[in-house]
Order: sequence, then structure tokens, then C-alpha cells
Amino acid sequence: MKNVPFSGVIAYPITPFDASEKVDIPLFKTLVEKLVTNGSHGIAPLGSTGVLPYLNDDEKEAVTEAAIQQVAGRVPVLVGVSNLTTERTIHHAKFAEKAGAAAVMIIPMSYWKLSDDEIVKHYDTVAKNIGIPIMAYNNPATSGVDMSTTLLKRLLKIPNVTMIKESTGDIQRMHFLRNELGDDVAFFNGSNPLALAAFAAGANGWCTAAPNLIPELNISLFNAIQKNDLKEAQNIFYKQLDLLRFIVETGLPRAIKAGLEIQGQNGGFLRSPLNELDKPSVEKLSQILKKCISN
Amino acid sequence: MKNVPFSGVIAYPITPFDASEKVDIPLFKTLVEKLVTNGSHGIAPLGSTGVLPYLNDDEKEAVTEAAIQQVAGRVPVLVGVSNLTTERTIHHAKFAEKAGAAAVMIIPMSYWKLSDDEIVKHYDTVAKNIGIPIMAYNNPATSGVDMSTTLLKRLLKIPNVTMIKESTGDIQRMHFLRNELGDDVAFFNGSNPLALAAFAAGANGWCTAAPNLIPELNISLFNAIQKNDLKEAQNIFYKQLDLLRFIVETGLPRAIKAGLEIQGQNGGFLRSPLNELDKPSVEKLSQILKKCISN
Amino acid sequence: MKNVPFSGVIAYPITPFDASEKVDIPLFKTLVEKLVTNGSHGIAPLGSTGVLPYLNDDEKEAVTEAAIQQVAGRVPVLVGVSNLTTERTIHHAKFAEKAGAAAVMIIPMSYWKLSDDEIVKHYDTVAKNIGIPIMAYNNPATSGVDMSTTLLKRLLKIPNVTMIKESTGDIQRMHFLRNELGDDVAFFNGSNPLALAAFAAGANGWCTAAPNLIPELNISLFNAIQKNDLKEAQNIFYKQLDLLRFIVETGLPRAIKAGLEIQGQNGGFLRSPLNELDKPSVEKLSQILKKCISN
Amino acid sequence: MKNVPFSGVIAYPITPFDASEKVDIPLFKTLVEKLVTNGSHGIAPLGSTGVLPYLNDDEKEAVTEAAIQQVAGRVPVLVGVSNLTTERTIHHAKFAEKAGAAAVMIIPMSYWKLSDDEIVKHYDTVAKNIGIPIMAYNNPATSGVDMSTTLLKRLLKIPNVTMIKESTGDIQRMHFLRNELGDDVAFFNGSNPLALAAFAAGANGWCTAAPNLIPELNISLFNAIQKNDLKEAQNIFYKQLDLLRFIVETGLPRAIKAGLEIQGQNGGFLRSPLNELDKPSVEKLSQILKKCISN
Repeated sequence: MKNVPFSGVIAYPITPFDASEKVDIPLFKTLVEKLVTNGSHGIAPLGSTGVLPYLNDDEKEAVTEAAIQQVAGRVPVLVGVSNLTTERTIHHAKFAEKAGAAAVMIIPMSYWKLSDDEIVKHYDTVAKNIGIPIMAYNNPATSGVDMSTTLLKRLLKIPNVTMIKESTGDIQRMHFLRNELGDDVAFFNGSNPLALAAFAAGANGWCTAAPNLIPELNISLFNAIQKNDLKEAQNIFYKQLDLLRFIVETGLPRAIKAGLEIQGQNGGFLRSPLNELDKPSVEKLSQILKKCISN
Repeated sequence: MKNVPFSGVIAYPITPFDASEKVDIPLFKTLVEKLVTNGSHGIAPLGSTGVLPYLNDDEKEAVTEAAIQQVAGRVPVLVGVSNLTTERTIHHAKFAEKAGAAAVMIIPMSYWKLSDDEIVKHYDTVAKNIGIPIMAYNNPATSGVDMSTTLLKRLLKIPNVTMIKESTGDIQRMHFLRNELGDDVAFFNGSNPLALAAFAAGANGWCTAAPNLIPELNISLFNAIQKNDLKEAQNIFYKQLDLLRFIVETGLPRAIKAGLEIQGQNGGFLRSPLNELDKPSVEKLSQILKKCISN
Repeated sequence: MKNVPFSGVIAYPITPFDASEKVDIPLFKTLVEKLVTNGSHGIAPLGSTGVLPYLNDDEKEAVTEAAIQQVAGRVPVLVGVSNLTTERTIHHAKFAEKAGAAAVMIIPMSYWKLSDDEIVKHYDTVAKNIGIPIMAYNNPATSGVDMSTTLLKRLLKIPNVTMIKESTGDIQRMHFLRNELGDDVAFFNGSNPLALAAFAAGANGWCTAAPNLIPELNISLFNAIQKNDLKEAQNIFYKQLDLLRFIVETGLPRAIKAGLEIQGQNGGFLRSPLNELDKPSVEKLSQILKKCISN
Repeated sequence: MKNVPFSGVIAYPITPFDASEKVDIPLFKTLVEKLVTNGSHGIAPLGSTGVLPYLNDDEKEAVTEAAIQQVAGRVPVLVGVSNLTTERTIHHAKFAEKAGAAAVMIIPMSYWKLSDDEIVKHYDTVAKNIGIPIMAYNNPATSGVDMSTTLLKRLLKIPNVTMIKESTGDIQRMHFLRNELGDDVAFFNGSNPLALAAFAAGANGWCTAAPNLIPELNISLFNAIQKNDLKEAQNIFYKQLDLLRFIVETGLPRAIKAGLEIQGQNGGFLRSPLNELDKPSVEKLSQILKKCISN
């Protein structure tokens, strides 16, 4: 049987910086701790939320180690190791495995649009260099490549590619995955506003930065699905939809940092060229957060 | 309270033609009768399935009368009356009301892209000329206009615009409608492959041509939702998804006609330039139908 | 050799209405006369500019006859005869031929997306019923079908399909047509803002409503191209670009009517749901027209 | 007056690798030398063709120095210094200036979609750290950001942002730039199949990898434009269009490497995950190159 170490709500921490734009590891650990104690079923450092592509190799390694140490085995850790070159992807995947990751997440980053054969070879080469499972991540908006279901089928034949994260925002993709691949595939939703529809479609889990701000609502949604109570899931979903849409539209790292500060926590600094949210957006987020809690 | 005469599965009959491409009213009545006796909660002649735009005014009136006579009050009838000009839309809406329709469906057909003001005036002028409710239909793929939620809010202020049919295929539109408009809006799903996700999002009904071929599966899906049984709804949905996708991809009038003939019924002829499905597509449909039934 | 009766600037008159939204034939004749005396190389009634799809059959025939009578052989007339059904397309094409049209223009209107085979059969059936040439018109924004170069090649094998009008707005389509089809194809540009690029690519002519307002600039551009003077063509093009963009963005029938009135002429009324341009747009058009003339 | 050191054909060398996927500097110098002796008006290392994002910092510096040394002042050198973070962009821009670059090219790379304010701040911060001009590069397909003309106007107010490279493939963008910004802006075409249309629209130059394979045809096109001979430019353009389309569709680094080898030269190796062109594509390229030369 396939090795699928994740299920439920997989929380994505931001990577906070200090005033001189260096990675702030102590603050990162504080944020990770909060995600674990608030009930997340998994922790995923170095995702888009964690601004993976803006970090150099040393920084990526420091964040990987910090996350795994802080989580300390309480929940599984999924480390993002995507890189434009195959050689660097292998390097980071091996590092993550050695540091104790339960799995690695890999998106086929591409500057030059990759052919299906190039993508298969990329995953296959990485897979042969590690013993832990891989979550293949489809997000054309950031990778520039939209992996077809035909390609995903090919990837799933690689023994340790056991999970797919879908972030196109098109629910019909998830229907198709489930319909074509049946129970052989564990698929995860990476599009926050699709959380309800994806669970209705049979998703195993939800990859999200929202638990940095509203963990109870996120986890309650999963619980309602587990209880087969669609009405309750629908109600809980509509309570958080505004927040889910807002953080996607304004950019996860900016929005989570702003939200943490509204909640009286330290969100650190961003790395240039990323700027803080402007005042009107912060005000809007503040109102959305109030409404989420009062509901 | 708003007048919303529809809920559940609203079935769309095709408009069959005879060998000389004239509308075949007796066959049309046979097809409508089957939809009613198979349990559809409403009947909608002159939709896209019914090739409304390919008919002349006399033909539209004959089809309207035939549908209402055949249904004979057993379920409500929703008549498509969309037209490029406001004058013709009024003409057909008044005819439908007089003939006994429960409501009319109007899509803002446009050759020249209409402004929001033009669309509001179009609906408002029609609405003032009739006493029955209007279902505003958003389907940019066929109308050329994508009505924003801002525009839909304006339309809903017209007293007898009480229902919205959404066919963009984007589930987030339905989330947004429900989230923004709350219980004030009755929204209906017009995108077959979104049937499960739309009900999960709170849709009042499903506008579909599928009951021409697989009425039990369509109605069972709605029943599972009514029982708040997501697991069952999911199972029933995946049994019919291939068929739902197939009829959309190949074009509803072509696919329904072919499916009826596979099932040993008369589907009539199509009007040129529409052609019959090619052999390989018919063969594929045959296999999909077999699989639907065996499940 | 192929029969290509058009070259240069083919002018599209609007179809004006009176206050009760009936077609105003006397005003239509006045507008056609002006286009001819201002030097247009062809006249094309019942295009998009002439709101073809908003007219009933009698109105289409009256406009066809009026145009051909008024032009009286001074330049060739190209009549739009597109219709959703093959039967009606044949009807109008035969009428146009009998009335004296030099050619007919046909876009594969589609409510249900047509297959390549359906489109070929549609053109072929019409072609066999008339003796004059056909201009096949590709404009996915209004027809819903984007004809591939492969399909256009098939259409050009029909003996009296001798011209292609391209309105996708993508100059690379014209490059491809010329590159693939060589001198066998006469292609015409239907995208106003592409006028310079299309002539540079080798277009035989320009189908445009702009001569209703700025005939000298339109015809001078063609003359500069004929003289192989790119610098002059470039200068003349940039003088009219703002106007070309404006009339496309606001909709040709609305913009031409407003422009005629700014110039002290009668533009008639529009047919609902089409509304007049709003005040700020009329003011903007007024400034653009002043700038065109002062340059 | 603005400092615009480039005009005409700006040639982009590939960055070749050796069998172990290390940058092959001697081969790179050979390829640069050929571009200069074949008549290119400028040389641009570390573009997309030069796989900039696949190189580490040391490699970028080695390539920059090698290009400038080899060119040795015969033509100006434009160095690509784009990076996701502002800090690294400054680093590479300063390095390029010190090494002797005439200008740097910067695309606003973005993983998280940048706001206009973030992009302006990014360019402004880099601009203040160097004394040479900047070419702002718009290519949403690779950067994920489509810079509006409003944003480009803001960038052009930064004193040393003096050039714009447009690669959206939409000729109307160039018309708009020229129309809005007049003679204040030097714009360059980065979309190979638009070469003729862009020069017709008034582009100052053409940024292209094609001179690695067909320098005479590329430079002749520019010469015909300089002579105001549109007919000749058109003829020369259609001779090379197949090649221009091919190298874009298959990816510049892959296509140039394959083309060099077809011509009996050494194209080096690619860096994984980029793979060589497959056999059928190489065969097709071979035929296209033969046709280019025989014309």
C-alpha cells in the first residue's frame, strides 16, 4: 500500500524576516509551535507561503531544521524542496530527508516550459535519491506548467510519488483525478476558496496558510466532513470564505503577516521587493477577522 | 417573500426535428412526457439543449405550447425566451406567461457586448411586461457576456427577477453569490460537471439535460443532498460524472439525440449546420451509458 | 485565377433606426452615399457594424437592396448573410446575389460550437447555391468559433470561397495565413487597430467602419502602403490609432452614430438593448476626432 | 537626452554546458565571437536564451565577464541581472556595470505577484545603485507579471530606465507604447514572430536568439526597414518566419543548441531538467534551416 503520511489540515508557516531582511529563526519557531498546538494535522515549511524561492540554500536548510526540531515528531512535516534545476532539487530533498521530514513537496518550477518527458525525468531522478514520499504539486500560476492528468498518472507510477496537491482552482480537476485514478491517489487541495468543494470531491487534505490566523474554523471544517455532515460543513465554510479569499488575493506572506499583527502577534518583516499590505487592505482584513470570530 | 417556483432537478428536453428539418412536435411531447414521469422536478423547454436560437418565432411558440400542454401542471415549466432584441424578448415572455409558464429564463444574448446599464434596462423592460418570475442566466460561453456579481445584485432588485442560473463552470461564483447575497437569492447550477460541488455550495437546483438519459442517477444525487448524506452524494456523483462530461463536451443536442437512440428511443433529426455525433463518439457514449447503469 | 473583387478600404455602414426603432432606409442610403463619394473601395452592408443579427429577414432584404441601388455599381458591394442555420444562410446569400452583390461575407455563427466538418459542410452547401464569391470571416469574439488555419485551408478548396477576413486581433494569424497559403489566398484585416501591421503582413484590404468618420486618414494609409512608403504609413496610422481603438472598445454601432452626430450629421437611433454612448464617452470621442483632423 | 546605447539586432547567446552540466566558458566565448563577427549590433548574455535563472551567482558573474571580454568593445553589451529579490538584483547590476556592460536588462521576476508600487520601488532601488541605463523587460509568460503601460510610464520617470523590451507577442502593446509615450521611449521587440510588425510599429531594435543560426536574414530585415523598403522587408521576413516560430515554440536554448549542431558547430549540453530536442523536432529544424538558406 502507498505511503501517505498526511491527512486533514496541513498548515503552512510563513518565513519571517528581521528588520535587515535576514530570516528570523526564533520567530519562525514560535509561529510553527502555535500551528502545532492549535491542532494542525501537519506542518509544511518552505511552501509558497514560506517564500521558498526568495531564500538562498543556507536559509532553506536552516528553516528546514528549525521546523523539524520545533515540531519534534508531534505531527508529520512536509518540506518544500522545489528548484529550477534537478541537481538543486536533489540536494534539498536529501537534506530534508536526513533532517527528518515525513515527505517532500515538489512543484515542477519552470522558466522554460518543460515537456512531459522532462518533468517525469525530473521527478524520477529526485525520487531515486530519497526514501521518503513525494507530493507532486500542480500550480500553473506559480510554476508556469499545468500538469495534465495524463502526466500526473505517469508521475504516480514512480513508487514514492504518492500524493498530489492541486492548486489550479478548478474543482473539475479534482473530480477528474478521483474519477480516473480512483482510490490509488491521495489528492490534496491547495486552493483555499475551494476547501469545501474539494472535500466534497473526496480530497484527503487541505494545504493552507489559514491556520496561522483561524485554526479553529479550518479544523472544524475538516471535522464536519469527517462526520459526513454537509450542512455543518457548509455553514463553517461560509464563515471563513471571506478570509480565505482575502489571503489568496493579497498574497499569503503579506496577508498572514498583517493578520498576525492585527491579532497582537509578531509577524516579522518581509523581504524586498515584497511590501507590507497597504492601510486599506489591513483595515479590510481586520474587519474580516472580526466577522470570522463573531460568527 | 420571493416567488421561486423551482427546486431540485429541472430537466431540459431537446427540440427534435423531422427528416426535412422541421420541428417534430409529437416526438417533442413524447420526450417531455418521459421527463415528467421519470421524476424531474421541473421542465425547461427552449434552453440551449432545445436549440432556441435555431428556431423561428412560430416554432418557438409551438414548442412552448406543446410543453405546457403535455406537462399539464404536474410540475412547473420554465420557458427560455432569450432574444438579441428587447422587443422580441418581451414578445416571447408575454407569450410564455399567457401559455401557462411558471417562469421564464433569460440570458442577455449579445452580439455587441452589452454594458451593465443596457443589461439592467433589458431585464427591467421585460420584467415590467410580465407577471411571472424571471430566472437570469449567466453563461458567457454562449451569451458573450459574463455578468458580474455586482450586476446580478442589480438584477435581483427587479421584483420578479428571483432566480439565477450560473453556468460559468466556476464553483467560486456560486460561493460568492451565496456569500454576498445570502438567503435572498435562489441560485441554480447550469454546469453539469459541477453538480456535486454546486449542491455542496447550497444551490437550490440543477438545470440539466441529463434526465433525458439517466434520470434515476440525477434525482438520487439531489435526494442524497436533501438527506445531508455527503458520502452517498459523492458516490452517486462519480457514477454519472463521465456522462455529464461527455454530453457537455460533445454538445447537448447531439449527445442527447445519440443517447436516446442507443437506449432504443427516437431522438429525431438535428437542424443544419448541426450534425450527428460521429461513430467513435457514439461508441464511447454507448460504453459510458452501460457503465452508468451497471454501477 | 481566383475571383477576388475587393482590395483596399472596404467601408461598413451602420444600419440606422428611427425613433420607434424601425430601420431608417432613407438615412441608410445617405450614409452609404457618403462612404462612396469619400473614396471607399468597397461597401459592406449587414456586417457587425450594420447590426445584422438584430434584424429580421425582411429588414435584411430591404437593407441589401438599398445598399446595392445606392452604390449603383460605382464600387463592389459585399453583403453579410451569416445566419445560425444553413437554410437561412442560403436564403440570404441567394437574395444578395440576385440583388447584385459582388460577394457575400459569411461567419460561422454558432450557438453550439461547430465541428470543422460541420463548418465545411455549411460553407459548401451555401457555395453550391450561389455563383458569386464568398469571404469567410473569422472572428471568435462574435461567432464563438475560432477557425484554425487547417480549417481555412479546407474552406479555400471550395471554388467560390476566395477571401478570408481575419478579426482575431492576432497579427501572427495573418503571417501564418500568408506563410502557409502563399499567394493563393486574399486575406483582409477586420481588426481596426491592426491596420498597419496587417498591411505590412501583406493584407489585400481593410474591412472597417472608420470611413464613416475619418475616410481621408483610412484611405491615405492604404495609399502609403501602395507606394511602399512605410514611414508615411506609420505616421498616418498613429494619427488615427486613438479613433480606431475607441470605436472598437465602445462598440462600432454606438461609436459611429455618436461620431456622426459630433460631425453634425444624423446618425439615427439604435435598437434596444443597445444604448447610446454615455456623455463622458461622447466627450472623449469628440476630442479624439478633433485631434485626428488637426494632425 | 536619454541614454539609449542599443539599436538594431541585439543577439542573445545561449549559455552552453559541458557533459557534467558545468558552464562551458570557452565554448560560450566562441559563440559570442561568432555573433559579433556576423554583424549583430549588440550582445545580450544572461537572457532567457542564456538560461539566467538556472545559474548560480558565481556562474552568472563568470558569464558576464566572459561576454564583455570577448566582445571587447566592438558592440555594446546588455547584461541580464534579473532576480527575485531586490538585494540580489542590485548585486548583479553593480557587477555588470563594473565589468563594462553598456546597460542591464531587468524583468520583474515574481513568484508572488508584485504590485505596481513594489515593482517601481524594485527598479528605483536598483537604478540608484548603478550609473548605466536599464532596459525594463515585460514578458508575463516568464515573469508572471504583465506590466501595464501606466506602470511602464512610471518606470520611465526613473532617470536611467531608458528602454523597454516588449515580449507579450501583442503588437497593439507596441502601438500603445509609441502612441502614449511618443519619442520619449525606445522600445525593443522581444517576440521573434513579431519582428516585421514591431519594426513597422517603430521599434528601435529586435532582441533575438535567431542570429545564432541565421544572422544574415535577421540583419537584412533591419536594413530593409532602415531603407524604408516595406516590400523587401516583407519578403525577407517571410523567409525566416518558420525558423522564428520554431525556436520560440520549442524553447530557445534547446532549439539554438540543436540548430548549431545541424550547422556543424558545437552547441554544448543543456542543464537538467532541460532535455535535448527530440529526433522529429531536430529533423523539422533541419528542413526549416535548409529552406531559409535556399530562399
